[in-house]
Order: sequence, then C-alpha cells, then structure tokens
Amino acid sequence: MEEVKLYGMWPSPFYYRVLWTLKLKGIPFEYIEEDIKNKSPQLLQYNPVYKKIPVLDHGGKPICESMNIVQYIDEVWPQNSLLPADPYERSVARFWVNFAEVKGVSIWKVFRTNGEEQKKAVEESLEMLRIVEEQCLGEKKFFGGDHINIVDIAFGAIIYWFGVIVEISGFKLFGLDEKLPLLHAWIKNFEELSTIKENLPDRDKLVVFVKTRREATFGSSS
Amino acid sequence: MEEVKLYGMWPSPFYYRVLWTLKLKGIPFEYIEEDIKNKSPQLLQYNPVYKKIPVLDHGGKPICESMNIVQYIDEVWPQNSLLPADPYERSVARFWVNFAEVKGVSIWKVFRTNGEEQKKAVEESLEMLRIVEEQCLGEKKFFGGDHINIVDIAFGAIIYWFGVIVEISGFKLFGLDEKLPLLHAWIKNFEELSTIKENLPDRDKLVVFVKTRREATFGSSS
Repeated sequence: MEEVKLYGMWPSPFYYRVLWTLKLKGIPFEYIEEDIKNKSPQLLQYNPVYKKIPVLDHGGKPICESMNIVQYIDEVWPQNSLLPADPYERSVARFWVNFAEVKGVSIWKVFRTNGEEQKKAVEESLEMLRIVEEQCLGEKKFFGGDHINIVDIAFGAIIYWFGVIVEISGFKLFGLDEKLPLLHAWIKNFEELSTIKENLPDRDKLVVFVKTRREATFGSSS
Repeated sequence: MEEVKLYGMWPSPFYYRVLWTLKLKGIPFEYIEEDIKNKSPQLLQYNPVYKKIPVLDHGGKPICESMNIVQYIDEVWPQNSLLPADPYERSVARFWVNFAEVKGVSIWKVFRTNGEEQKKAVEESLEMLRIVEEQCLGEKKFFGGDHINIVDIAFGAIIYWFGVIVEISGFKLFGLDEKLPLLHAWIKNFEELSTIKENLPDRDKLVVFVKTRREATFGSSS
C-alpha cells in the first residue's frame, strides 16, 4: 500500500472535496495543514503552477486541483464509485462538475468584492443556483440520484460556503428556500450524510474566519 | 450504429478539438454548420445552459463542452486512445487540459480587448505559454509523447488561433521561436500531422474573419 497524504487548509472548500472523497472511500491518509502565509517547500514543489492546496501525495506522486484529485481517487479506489458507469451519464456528470468550476467563481467573487460589484456577484450566484436547481438537480435526492456522486462533491463545497459568505456580507436572501426549494432540500440531504456532517468545518469558526478576512480587506461594517 | 452529428462553426477553435478527435478515431459523422447570429432550435435545445457549439449528438443524446466531448468520444470509441492508460498519467493529462481551459482565456482576451488591456492579455498569454513550454511539454515531440493525446488537442486549438489573433492585433512578437523553442517545434510537429493539417481552417480566411470581427468592435486600425 502506497502512502496517501493530503495537503489542505481547514477553511478551504476545495480541500473538503478531497477530504469527503477519501472519507467516503475509507482510504487512510495523513493530513498536513498548510499555512497560507507560509506555504511548505513540499507544497510549492508539488504544485509549482498554482502553488495551492489541495494536493494529494500518493506514494510520492503529487496530484493537484480538487476535482482532478477526486477523479484520480475514484479511478484508483473504485469502491463507492463517484462517477456513473455509463459513458453518457459520465459526460453529463463531468459537464456539471465543469459548470460548478466555471460558474462557481461568482460565489468566490461575493467574498472578494464590495458594494455594486458584490451585488452583481450575488445576482450571478443566484442565477447559477437557479440553473443548477432547474436543469441539473430536479426532483432527485442527490445530484447522483439515490446516492451522492462527483456532482454532489463539486457543488457541496460551493453551496455550504455560499451560505456563510452571504451571511457575513450582510445580504439578506429572504425566501431562498421558497425560491430554490429543490436545492434547499438537497442541502439538508447532503449535510445529513454522516460522512459529510462529520467532515464540514465548524460553521461558527468559519464565520469568524470569513468575517476577519473580509474586515482585513474592506474594514468592519456596521 | 447510432448516428453521430457535430454542430460547429468553422472559425471556432473549440469546434476543431472535436473535429480532430472524430477524424483521429475514424468516426463517420454528419456536420451541421451553425450561424452565430441565428442559432438553430436544435442547438439551443441541446445546450440550454451555454447555447454554444460544439455539441455532439450521439444517437439523439447531446454532449456539450469541447473537452468533455473529447473525453466522451475517447471512452466510447477507444481506438487511438487520447488519454494515458495509467491513472496517474491520466491525472497529469487532465491537469493540463484544465490549465488550457482556465489560462487559455487570456488568449481569447487578446481578441476581445484593445490598448492597455490587450497588452496585459498578451503578456498573460506569453506567461501561460512559458509555463506550458517549461512544465508540460519539455523535450517531447508531442504533449502525449511520441503520439498526440488529449493535451495536444486542448492546446492545439489555443496555439493556432493565438498566432492569428496576435498577427491581426498588430503585435509583433519577434523571436517567439527563440523564446519558446520547444513550443515552436511542437507547433510544427502538430500541424504536420495529416489529420490536423487537413482539418485546420484556412489561415487567410481565418485572418479575414478575425480582422472583420475586431474591426466591427474597435474600428479599423491604420
């Protein structure tokens, strides 16, 4: 058995995608918490292009980029498969994973911006979630159907953080559960899975972290 | 045998990725040229999220997004495989395909911008190509080694168009062959492959197309 190590940072949504995948598959691993202000030489050597976590080290070989790591794990450890067996269904899953990556950017923009720019990012995020509700999720329990799959992993990281970021930003998104009822039901289903529940960052701690980071950039708001 | 149809537009780099893949695998297909100003109802129904070509129709089922289509084709028609068999090598290939998608954006920015903004996009594009040369290509004949693979397909679309866009934009990138010698050699190797050579848009026609589109946005330059 080759050793598995995961380089992460506890507040990073991208790190959790890999964490959930390893836990869902029951793969033992060593965790290395990185410091964003003082990244380890090993991390920089493993991910010279982006210099970012998460990085998976499998027997000394580095794999970078969260959804790429999830796919790698799914191929090497096929138990509790996260991608459909049928090639067409697999292409649909990959389409939505890619959508999460490309359009999910609007949610990180809510975190990084202020004023009008931030308002626009919130609107873009809600439009993205509306497309996800209508065209991807539908009446299914999980994106993967009865069981979670790679699409749940991709969106899980985005949607949990969105709730926290929106709260901190002072936006009141009243009636989101009525506007996006299927997504609202999905969040409950997802967070109630024991593997997910046990491997989410503490919400209060995350709120403080996000708040502190925003105040360092924009100052404290009343 | 289920019918294969490809919806494309002749000047689109993304369309060529799918075209090359179908040709490399020897898959017969029907081609439907879309009109950017008057997209067909079928295209809009097949790709309601992005409303963009390329779309592959395989027996009535649509697959969207160029690199997703390439992966689908590679899984359904495994001849002349475009992804490495080894999971680790596959993860490395997917990392670079993703890099092409994420960082390739700077090259389309060169097309869509002017003045200082465009100058910055050219610099970002060159920085991207430098990383590709140093960290991805190396001394190999193709990104895939002795034979082209999915990474060549991903970058092929970007680099051929970059040459045209830069030419039209009036930038003189003297000595690019000396600054990026490995990439320069790769372009030759890639374009000399008969399947690629026979399935690239005519350069003069593409130059006129790009020039006309830019003039419609920015006016003609002296």
